[in-house]
Amino acid sequence: MPVPRGLAGVVVTDTVLGDVRGREGFYHYRQYSAVDLAMTRSFEDVWHLMLRGELPTIAERAHFLERTARLRRLPTEVREALPAIARASGPSGPLAGVRTALSLFGAAKGFRPLYDIDARAREDDLLAASAVVPTLLTALHRLGEGEEPIEPREDLPYAANYLYMLTGQVPDARRARAVERYLISTVDHGFNASTFTSRVIASTGADAAAALVGAVGALSGPLHGGAPSRALDTLDAIGTPDRIAPWIRERVLGGERIMGFGHPVYRTEDPRSRMLRTIAEEFGGELVDFAVRVERQVEEILAELKPGRELHTNVEFYAGVVMELCGLPRSMFTPTFAAARVVGWSANILEQADDSKIIRPSARYVGPEAPRPVPTVD
Amino acid sequence: MPVPRGLAGVVVTDTVLGDVRGREGFYHYRQYSAVDLAMTRSFEDVWHLMLRGELPTIAERAHFLERTARLRRLPTEVREALPAIARASGPSGPLAGVRTALSLFGAAKGFRPLYDIDARAREDDLLAASAVVPTLLTALHRLGEGEEPIEPREDLPYAANYLYMLTGQVPDARRARAVERYLISTVDHGFNASTFTSRVIASTGADAAAALVGAVGALSGPLHGGAPSRALDTLDAIGTPDRIAPWIRERVLGGERIMGFGHPVYRTEDPRSRMLRTIAEEFGGELVDFAVRVERQVEEILAELKPGRELHTNVEFYAGVVMELCGLPRSMFTPTFAAARVVGWSANILEQADDSKIIRPSARYVGPEAPRPVPTVD
Repeated sequence: MPVPRGLAGVVVTDTVLGDVRGREGFYHYRQYSAVDLAMTRSFEDVWHLMLRGELPTIAERAHFLERTARLRRLPTEVREALPAIARASGPSGPLAGVRTALSLFGAAKGFRPLYDIDARAREDDLLAASAVVPTLLTALHRLGEGEEPIEPREDLPYAANYLYMLTGQVPDARRARAVERYLISTVDHGFNASTFTSRVIASTGADAAAALVGAVGALSGPLHGGAPSRALDTLDAIGTPDRIAPWIRERVLGGERIMGFGHPVYRTEDPRSRMLRTIAEEFGGELVDFAVRVERQVEEILAELKPGRELHTNVEFYAGVVMELCGLPRSMFTPTFAAARVVGWSANILEQADDSKIIRPSARYVGPEAPRPVPTVD
Repeated sequence: MPVPRGLAGVVVTDTVLGDVRGREGFYHYRQYSAVDLAMTRSFEDVWHLMLRGELPTIAERAHFLERTARLRRLPTEVREALPAIARASGPSGPLAGVRTALSLFGAAKGFRPLYDIDARAREDDLLAASAVVPTLLTALHRLGEGEEPIEPREDLPYAANYLYMLTGQVPDARRARAVERYLISTVDHGFNASTFTSRVIASTGADAAAALVGAVGALSGPLHGGAPSRALDTLDAIGTPDRIAPWIRERVLGGERIMGFGHPVYRTEDPRSRMLRTIAEEFGGELVDFAVRVERQVEEILAELKPGRELHTNVEFYAGVVMELCGLPRSMFTPTFAAARVVGWSANILEQADDSKIIRPSARYVGPEAPRPVPTVD
């Protein structure tokens, strides 16, 4: 059965988890706009929504907060292995480190094949894995910097605890909330390659860690995970407001891609970008003013040089700005993306595990006709 | 675009690496019958064939043997982490352990994204990863048994070194060759779920370790990797020749699956099973006689109770017998499968990396209409 390259547009599954409506500049988790959720709800509320299909009641929220906070602490054998993992993963950074550490975590917790356990036990494993990812990432980052990891605090909500474990300081409410909104907006985004990877692995009945570790690997690919730090690197490379126009013109005329602009699905403004710009503007300051000027000039120059070509900032552009404003180091931008996305993968793994059909397409052999006789050893 | 569940029969890529022709009971690597290769060639020859498209010349063989043997030794930071990995992965075994260790290895070696490096550098990474998998697996197994890992020997070929690292004894030629033939027959087998996983991850441009670790995860799924040990467990459960008939009758009449029988693709005898039975019969002995009797009686009882239903032994059945005869512990059967398959994944990753199109299908949203207003917090 011939299909488009890369399976583009091929429907591999039904889902109730959400969708991206690129032409409308809109995406949703379950039946709610993701941006509306980010503006009005907590990370834990959205986590609960993704896994269970419902926003929590007051009682459920309290229980879910307490439970996920308790799960943040690492088992001893994983905590003890982290310095070696950080040392070995040094050049590859916390994302390669968390791929290893999450694999170890699943084994240490004795995660069992998804098809051998019931839906509640699957959720237990996925909650446990998602809850430790921030602990793992921040510990790996700190160890890489020669600093001691900071134990999680159970009295802080998810995003505040994340920043606390990273910096050792309880963040102010504005920074915690800005990062929380970014995290919520990053939980899921349609059927991307890492989500698909998690579902293919889950469809074999492998354990939750196997599926999540594969997804982390896919996210680390340059064609997928992107890198919010690249957009900031662009701002750095431009340097000063007077250099914006010549720098952009040179790239556009040279046919080069400008990092932080353009998205394969959105034809309008990326709704995440719009939200993150608003958040950045609430902070204000030199970096934000500069970013807004770069955005405006890119759009103006494109309108002049490539009329009719719609090109807007994507999520990377203002995500980088917001994370910088909140004190996240650039090496943690993509790992932070992974911390949020693990919740989306978890919901997808749960949904996939309800099916029992392995995802196993075919390849078409196009080599020389077989069998040819095996030549005798020379 | 509607497609069959699980993408069954959907062609996701062209390949020159091989194919399974289930109706003919035949499968091939490149243009050669896999069984012919197993009967006439070395594991290293087939490894070379899979990666480079050609069986090696004499000079190439010597060079490839020397090179892959040198790559068996673990980097210090990985060797030092193995006891912790073995301890933490204890209940989940060497397959979960190698998922972690291979992830660590890739990070320690600084594997770079596939799309950032050329074909030669990709092959370097994949050779390095495949060469250490036996070292990792045998070390994890021994550590799990409370024994010291055994350093690889560069003067032994792949299969003999594998058994040596496992047991501390240089195996006799017959056992080394039997295991080598099993390993060759397991290098690849059409477009299975782990191979597909490795290609999806590779298609994002992630590094070789990310792709291989995802594949290890998929292989660990009960719907995929199978377990050659289960067939032996069946032989144990039957116990004695006089119990074969009643035991089999009871299962067949109860509609139960008999482990080691049946394959989703082969309608004839599984060619791997046929080869492995021949190898087992060369060893002879009580276990082999018993296995052959069980096979014959299953076929007879099926012909009587379910006439017209073709059901033959699959690769698990005699693979388990052969590995038992060669002194492999049952907990290492599936990990040994993984050691061979990593070569097939590597060839698939190289082929995928020549393409630059991300594999990213779609999902169809079937939940409640969105957007609904987000309820205010209760």
